[in-house]
Amino acid sequence: MSEEKDNVIFIGRKDTMNYVMACITLFQGDATEVILKARGRSISRAVDVSEILKNRFMKDQIAIDKIDISTETIESRDRGNFSVSAIEITIKKK
Amino acid sequence: MSEEKDNVIFIGRKDTMNYVMACITLFQGDATEVILKARGRSISRAVDVSEILKNRFMKDQIAIDKIDISTETIESRDRGNFSVSAIEITIKKK
Repeated sequence: MSEEKDNVIFIGRKDTMNYVMACITLFQGDATEVILKARGRSISRAVDVSEILKNRFMKDQIAIDKIDISTETIESRDRGNFSVSAIEITIKKK
Repeated sequence: MSEEKDNVIFIGRKDTMNYVMACITLFQGDATEVILKARGRSISRAVDVSEILKNRFMKDQIAIDKIDISTETIESRDRGNFSVSAIEITIKKK
C-alpha cells in the first residue's frame, strides 16, 4: 500500500513536461502503475500528461487503465467550503 | 445512429450551466445517453458538467458510463497542424 502511495503524482500548475518526466522516472524505477490526480483547471493538464506519455515517450509501453472523475470539497477560510471537480487517471505498464 | 449524433454536446467556452441545461433538455426528451466532448482547456469544464448533473440536477437518474481520452490533430493555417488532448464522457440514464 505504501508503494502505491509513492506512485501518485499530483498535477498542479507547473509545466506539463515536468509531470511527464516525473512519470517516466517512476516507471523507470519500480513502478508498474502511476496515478495522476488533478483538480479544477489542472484536469486538462493531467489528460495532456497521459496522452504525451502514451503517444510519445512511452509508446507501446503503457496503457491507460482507468479514469475516474469525482467532486472534492475544499475547505477554505476565505471562501468557505466549496466544491471542485477532480480526475484520477491510472496508467499501467504493459 | 443519427439519433446518437444529436446527443453529442460539444463543450466550449460558454458558462458551465449552459451545458448542464443542454444535457437536462436532452434527457428530458428522448435521449437515454448523452456524450460530452471537449478539447484542451475545456476538458475540465466537461468534467464539471457531468459532476454537476450527477450530484445535483439528475441525482440517481444518470450514471457516467465511460470516459475516453485521446489526442486530436487540429489543422490551423496560422499555426500549422498541432495536437490537442480531448475527452469524451458518456452519460447514461439509469
